[in-house]
Amino acid sequence: MPVSAEQQREIDDQRAQSQTTLRAVAPGMERHLYTAHPVLDHGFVRVVDYMGDDAAICQAARVSYGRGTKSVQNDEGLIRYLMRHWHSTPFEMCEAKFHVKLPVFVARQWIRHRTANVNEYSARYSILDREFYIPAPEHLAAQSTQNNQGRGEVLEGEEAARVLDMLRADAMRSYDHYEAMLSQDGQQGLARELARMNLPANIYTQWYWKVDLHNLLHFLRLRADPHAQYEIRAYADAMCQIVVDWVPAAFGAFRDYRMDAVSLSAQAVAVLQRRLRGETVAQEDSGMSAREWREFEEVWG
Amino acid sequence: MPVSAEQQREIDDQRAQSQTTLRAVAPGMERHLYTAHPVLDHGFVRVVDYMGDDAAICQAARVSYGRGTKSVQNDEGLIRYLMRHWHSTPFEMCEAKFHVKLPVFVARQWIRHRTANVNEYSARYSILDREFYIPAPEHLAAQSTQNNQGRGEVLEGEEAARVLDMLRADAMRSYDHYEAMLSQDGQQGLARELARMNLPANIYTQWYWKVDLHNLLHFLRLRADPHAQYEIRAYADAMCQIVVDWVPAAFGAFRDYRMDAVSLSAQAVAVLQRRLRGETVAQEDSGMSAREWREFEEVWG
Amino acid sequence: MPVSAEQQREIDDQRAQSQTTLRAVAPGMERHLYTAHPVLDHGFVRVVDYMGDDAAICQAARVSYGRGTKSVQNDEGLIRYLMRHWHSTPFEMCEAKFHVKLPVFVARQWIRHRTANVNEYSARYSILDREFYIPAPEHLAAQSTQNNQGRGEVLEGEEAARVLDMLRADAMRSYDHYEAMLSQDGQQGLARELARMNLPANIYTQWYWKVDLHNLLHFLRLRADPHAQYEIRAYADAMCQIVVDWVPAAFGAFRDYRMDAVSLSAQAVAVLQRRLRGETVAQEDSGMSAREWREFEEVWG
Amino acid sequence: MPVSAEQQREIDDQRAQSQTTLRAVAPGMERHLYTAHPVLDHGFVRVVDYMGDDAAICQAARVSYGRGTKSVQNDEGLIRYLMRHWHSTPFEMCEAKFHVKLPVFVARQWIRHRTANVNEYSARYSILDREFYIPAPEHLAAQSTQNNQGRGEVLEGEEAARVLDMLRADAMRSYDHYEAMLSQDGQQGLARELARMNLPANIYTQWYWKVDLHNLLHFLRLRADPHAQYEIRAYADAMCQIVVDWVPAAFGAFRDYRMDAVSLSAQAVAVLQRRLRGETVAQEDSGMSAREWREFEEVWG
Repeated sequence: MPVSAEQQREIDDQRAQSQTTLRAVAPGMERHLYTAHPVLDHGFVRVVDYMGDDAAICQAARVSYGRGTKSVQNDEGLIRYLMRHWHSTPFEMCEAKFHVKLPVFVARQWIRHRTANVNEYSARYSILDREFYIPAPEHLAAQSTQNNQGRGEVLEGEEAARVLDMLRADAMRSYDHYEAMLSQDGQQGLARELARMNLPANIYTQWYWKVDLHNLLHFLRLRADPHAQYEIRAYADAMCQIVVDWVPAAFGAFRDYRMDAVSLSAQAVAVLQRRLRGETVAQEDSGMSAREWREFEEVWG
Repeated sequence: MPVSAEQQREIDDQRAQSQTTLRAVAPGMERHLYTAHPVLDHGFVRVVDYMGDDAAICQAARVSYGRGTKSVQNDEGLIRYLMRHWHSTPFEMCEAKFHVKLPVFVARQWIRHRTANVNEYSARYSILDREFYIPAPEHLAAQSTQNNQGRGEVLEGEEAARVLDMLRADAMRSYDHYEAMLSQDGQQGLARELARMNLPANIYTQWYWKVDLHNLLHFLRLRADPHAQYEIRAYADAMCQIVVDWVPAAFGAFRDYRMDAVSLSAQAVAVLQRRLRGETVAQEDSGMSAREWREFEEVWG
Repeated sequence: MPVSAEQQREIDDQRAQSQTTLRAVAPGMERHLYTAHPVLDHGFVRVVDYMGDDAAICQAARVSYGRGTKSVQNDEGLIRYLMRHWHSTPFEMCEAKFHVKLPVFVARQWIRHRTANVNEYSARYSILDREFYIPAPEHLAAQSTQNNQGRGEVLEGEEAARVLDMLRADAMRSYDHYEAMLSQDGQQGLARELARMNLPANIYTQWYWKVDLHNLLHFLRLRADPHAQYEIRAYADAMCQIVVDWVPAAFGAFRDYRMDAVSLSAQAVAVLQRRLRGETVAQEDSGMSAREWREFEEVWG
Repeated sequence: MPVSAEQQREIDDQRAQSQTTLRAVAPGMERHLYTAHPVLDHGFVRVVDYMGDDAAICQAARVSYGRGTKSVQNDEGLIRYLMRHWHSTPFEMCEAKFHVKLPVFVARQWIRHRTANVNEYSARYSILDREFYIPAPEHLAAQSTQNNQGRGEVLEGEEAARVLDMLRADAMRSYDHYEAMLSQDGQQGLARELARMNLPANIYTQWYWKVDLHNLLHFLRLRADPHAQYEIRAYADAMCQIVVDWVPAAFGAFRDYRMDAVSLSAQAVAVLQRRLRGETVAQEDSGMSAREWREFEEVWG
């Protein structure tokens, strides 16, 4: 259960109180505000604040005095131009703040994105909840035989059952011992900053994460990618659904020029140019390694 | 004249249009929104957007589900604690976006603060206006005789007049030539990206500057300091007047623990402890250099 | 055992091969190069590369053509001046690269310092070793009764024994299950990126960490502080021993103006000034909260 | 003249003094150390220090104990894989420090790359030299008629002569007045921090600039690009010649996967796939704007 009844009440309270502002308002983002979008078994992503909208990108690019919007169509053209030509600074003029609940091993990948602001729930100061990520059967995958850094087939039958039993039992036992070590009932009670070291990496933590739109899109590009680990991709996918409602023009440009774009090496450009002239090109003759060639053929046949 | 009549109309338009939002609203900051606060002879600072308020700092520090505010007094205590103990990340959870018009030589100091987002008016793409900073007589100062990096007495009489004449004449002539080189009247017209090189560093430029509260306060600490060059200090001072209305508790803590605080070296601590015990300590006996001792005596007599 | 025999051989090999260079060389740092300084029960810190020395700080501050050194004494005076007046950019001109082996819960604190470069051992790609941090008896401390975020008395007798038994048994069982889930003996074998989630936060990881001297000193200031958690402080203390040999003048200035310095709030300055004039000041009359007053009296009696 | 006789002597002195080190040494970079490569009429770029080489990239990617090199071929394959798949952190493990002399308007573009360390010659503290960038006749170009942000044809005959006259005369007069305002001969002398505002943007400044290899390559990608302004491109080109000698494998991968690579939007991928199947595709049918189509046809005909 990602959110308790009391937490839901706090969220509903916030959604019930609207105020007036002179700032730019993004109606698509207001609809998401505070709502917890469930991710994995106990996690969530929710927007807790934002700054700017599509027009704010153009306003900054033009260093405008007023709204800076000429027309929606004109603005979209500018945004697509900026994205295509890697003019990243206008996208930095929008900002979003998220509250995320996520397993520690996902948090460890996430934090590698350094250009962001973070406040994490402190396990030195507070006691963590008994909530662990246990994969759904369809995400319990074997090691990939081709990719040292990925997963392959879904585990089957008894092996899957054994794994789930181990994950569940170890999580519960670790947490029982965490509580036993902390307890001040008839004993001194271990410091929280020490007791936490017994908890496995699938325990849930929480943080506030604030980031500008340029860096958010960079995060989504890497983490909503099929090569990203499924568990972080689940968060990135949920965030894509939010961002598309917040800044539809910027997200559309991002999809066309980044997510669904293809980067061709100098060698790949040459091969395609030869193919367009009717030549047949083989790997040996392409200047690409076997692995590169395989990746190339996945797109171009 | 910092803002033209047309620009003022655009500002008034934006101030006339309010909308509803579910986000945190800082009433003190809404009052400043869009308004251009004049700085120097043609410059200004104006807030074009913001995120968060004092409560947002506490909300992030507590990783809260709801508003996160317990009471105003309780929040202020937390904010002062965070500031005192250098817990900087909760202050990063507020963000402000400014539109600033400023002389190029001020912009060159300002940009050294790297943790911020910037979009500057492009002199490759557009033509700069004929606006130059000419110091007011009371800011026309001689080189300091003690500080290689500062100014001393105000210039007097004919010398002041000569300086102002040179600054004004050179600015006008440079701009005349800038226009002459750009002109496509009977000639090809020099590229804008080249012609701009003839313009002196007191010409005005503009930018959008977005920064989180922690880094903004760091900027203010260094640039509102009496050792900062007067021209950038004028901007920092104007921004202090805005920030105090935006996040009064955070600004109060910043004033007490940073701006008006004093940092004592290990040697200075030892000297003060000896003085408190009634000893008289001389520089030779203090472990401080002559220069340090002078700085020390300015505060402690 | 922090380093295996084979690893030690690789380290010895590197220390045996010297080459000539035209670059600045810091003899004190050459002595540390590659050597693993043990920290905690299985961890270490070792320098794998560095750039610059004390003279490089002055060279950059003076934007010199040559070495930029005037005299050692003159350079030290400049370095102390730069540190005292928060001129941080010249210190950024030195860089160090470390290889660190550390428990995951320490790595999670460490990574919060964002202005650094990191390559961590990948548990998606590789299998982690069976090495866990188990506190020495003298570091097995109870929760502090005064500080929600710290530790108090050392645990005694049976309670200490119970805690150590739980930590050791849970670590071993988690690792047994980690191996059992990964095994491809008669089963598919769980993906490494999933199996790792069962491992507790006291397992050791490794990374390469590269940072400039200004940000390294900031890290040391926060993490070698008595309020930092003991386990990360152990790393910071070891690094202080390295940095003092690398850039003795910069480290001396850092110690005097940061580590052993005291920051006085506006209120504290006023109280001290009154005391120096012979007044007796009580907390109620100081403008400080009870907590602040306590912190103040710790230094000033 | 980029470097005076005395400066050349300081450079020669440094190149004459070699020492031994245990660190990784890049022979190709040692050859460049300290030497000033001339750029534009009075500028230069010279390497003053560096850290790491191609092997250091692999060593960090593998979190190695020893040199981490398997074989040169194997290392090159890994470097190309890392570059192709945007694994940027291993490239951050190399660092270079440059001393650059450059016109102020170039410095203003350059400083927008924020992830770097900078110490600039201070015109508050010191007096700038009488050196200005005056374009060579072949770089004196008209405003582009197609691109608002670029240049077109070279200026001809009398117009070119008029422009050069204005640039030269204004530079000399500004500097004469700069000196006259600073003079303490029979007058107080204006503060240096004020007098500098009279100097145009083609005056030369200097700085130390330190950056990691990943961010250096990003800089080169944007600034060695044909769309970059010629004057900054001249610096980027000179730096490319240095980097290729420092880290030949990384630079080769950078050229193939970044500089000479082509990014295809989702729409462009679809068009190419249709063309490869033998279809003829027109702009109206491509999903691309007219401008995008023009850019597309420049590569693909």
